[in-house]
Amino acid sequence: MSAIEAVRWSPTGDAVRIIDQTRLPEQLEERDLRTLDDVCEAISLLRVRGAPAIGVAGALGLVVSLLGSGSLSPDQLRARARAHASRLAATRPTAVNLSWALDRVLARVDSAAGDSAGILAAMRDEAGAILEEDRAMCQRIGEHGLELIPDGARILTHCNAGALATSGIGTALAPVYLAVERGRRVEVYADETRPLFQGSRLTAWELSRVGIPVRVIVDSAAGSIMAAGKVDLVIVGADRIAANGDAANKIGSYALAVLARRHGIPFYVAAPVSTLDPALPGGSGIVIEQRPRAEIANGFGRTTVPEGVEVESPAFDVTPAELITAIITDRGVHRAPYDFGGKADRGSGFREERPQDSGGRVLGGGT
Amino acid sequence: MSAIEAVRWSPTGDAVRIIDQTRLPEQLEERDLRTLDDVCEAISLLRVRGAPAIGVAGALGLVVSLLGSGSLSPDQLRARARAHASRLAATRPTAVNLSWALDRVLARVDSAAGDSAGILAAMRDEAGAILEEDRAMCQRIGEHGLELIPDGARILTHCNAGALATSGIGTALAPVYLAVERGRRVEVYADETRPLFQGSRLTAWELSRVGIPVRVIVDSAAGSIMAAGKVDLVIVGADRIAANGDAANKIGSYALAVLARRHGIPFYVAAPVSTLDPALPGGSGIVIEQRPRAEIANGFGRTTVPEGVEVESPAFDVTPAELITAIITDRGVHRAPYDFGGKADRGSGFREERPQDSGGRVLGGGT
Repeated sequence: MSAIEAVRWSPTGDAVRIIDQTRLPEQLEERDLRTLDDVCEAISLLRVRGAPAIGVAGALGLVVSLLGSGSLSPDQLRARARAHASRLAATRPTAVNLSWALDRVLARVDSAAGDSAGILAAMRDEAGAILEEDRAMCQRIGEHGLELIPDGARILTHCNAGALATSGIGTALAPVYLAVERGRRVEVYADETRPLFQGSRLTAWELSRVGIPVRVIVDSAAGSIMAAGKVDLVIVGADRIAANGDAANKIGSYALAVLARRHGIPFYVAAPVSTLDPALPGGSGIVIEQRPRAEIANGFGRTTVPEGVEVESPAFDVTPAELITAIITDRGVHRAPYDFGGKADRGSGFREERPQDSGGRVLGGGT
Repeated sequence: MSAIEAVRWSPTGDAVRIIDQTRLPEQLEERDLRTLDDVCEAISLLRVRGAPAIGVAGALGLVVSLLGSGSLSPDQLRARARAHASRLAATRPTAVNLSWALDRVLARVDSAAGDSAGILAAMRDEAGAILEEDRAMCQRIGEHGLELIPDGARILTHCNAGALATSGIGTALAPVYLAVERGRRVEVYADETRPLFQGSRLTAWELSRVGIPVRVIVDSAAGSIMAAGKVDLVIVGADRIAANGDAANKIGSYALAVLARRHGIPFYVAAPVSTLDPALPGGSGIVIEQRPRAEIANGFGRTTVPEGVEVESPAFDVTPAELITAIITDRGVHRAPYDFGGKADRGSGFREERPQDSGGRVLGGGT
């Protein structure tokens, strides 16, 4: 439905093809990343962003960055792969999906037998699997969330947890795409999402280009729009979800949840199971990254904050579980009381290979 | 304390001296407005903004625009004064203070006896009185509100209801200035206030230049800052207050009130008595102006909303009285249940000369 492929192989398989998100919404420009420098630059500058998409870009990028290394010995190739992965991981040091995806590909580097060509083939297989799993994850979130999107729904969303943030149809927007595919009529309000405007630049772009009615509001207008009776449900993504259901997401999500509660509007969080952090009891353990002053003070080359005045710019906030009507994952629709700490909730599909980091994690910004 | 004079007579009295607010925070640039075109342009382009300041600028501007008209006959002068007032009023057609101030000066044009010089002198007296009354109004709001600002208070405000919005020390910021003058320590969080950034551009500027600690946040971070226990009280201005205490103010104020309630933080509204609309029973009667798409979509010459995507941009929202801890006016601190509909509440100081418009008023934007 979305027909957007934010990150994929180029047709010949020797490059990572991305949509350059820094050029949106003015230009739809695809870029083929062929070298390590290309891939690092694209991730650093947020040409590709969104935790799942970054993971995929890193995995594919690691492979293409080694395509000229076929003449190396297996040991030389392995060393170079590790060096490339280190540089890639450093581009967004706090993006968990990136290091997780790189580790998966590196595991194949170590385990693959045979010559360098065989190692490269194994790496390509693994990167391809990560890409396909990500697409499938989006699809499953969409299918599970479909029951929550009635015909005629007027939906408010924040930031971009759509196709541009994944290699598939997104997380928060996946149920919206599938609802439209099934013939349901929906209308979307997109918060512009200061400071980086992912809502107005990206969410509005990807929805409008497939004809889904979307309207942009400033973040602080959400309360007014709800009070006017124009919103039936809120759906946002998540960057990390604690065992008790507390969910960290882009700054402003918490205010939406509080406003939704006041107006009796359901507030949904959509995210892959890999976003659950069973080792983290509650959201208070999540350390929130502060973003640089310049993003707010000099957003577009014009100074909007006086010199010498401090800016406080938390990248994320935490919505307590009690304000979340349901959490939609690729495993189903979970309702309060949430308990993502136990094996039972994670089920057989839970990715045991995800990093078992916990507590005090600093979330990365700009996603 | 604030030492800012947003609008006043030039030293020689033949011009309106304003701070050009479109140049802030990069440049502190004063402009002397001498002609009708100067004054109209300054108000239209928001070089001077804030309802009280616009009223004062209009009154003073009407006088200076006629200074070359001393050789006209009294009747010719009266006709020209009315023509000038019409043009001035049209620059911000929905700003109630502007037409109110112009009407006051025009009333003196009609009532003044004698020659043209006498009429001009009477006009100058009236405009000067409006200026002085506005300054005194700010001072009284500050004094009444002082009891609400304890030593050490951490204050969140939105938009700019400060010295730059008046000819005195502001409305919402007046108690803050006086508290600092009395030696109390305060810290202010200024919401940047999309789409026009009056919070980060103007509030942060006027507070920081007199050494009051101020920090800028994006509007959607207010909930996170409150949840972190960093805010003791919220104080905002108002553009219109209904008889029951419902208060219209810059978009985003309502969300702050909802968040403040959730966190048990007092939410105060400060405004002159002239903002009360006793004929309007409740806030639902206030029609909210929609602002132009370009303010959001092309704020700084960069496109942040895709072409063809609609923007919904209400300039104001309405905070219901039940969420307002107290309303601070130049007459005192009023607490719920509010009843501004009766004579008793308006008291002897109530400006009977204010326009008796009511219901369905469209509020002007950009204030």
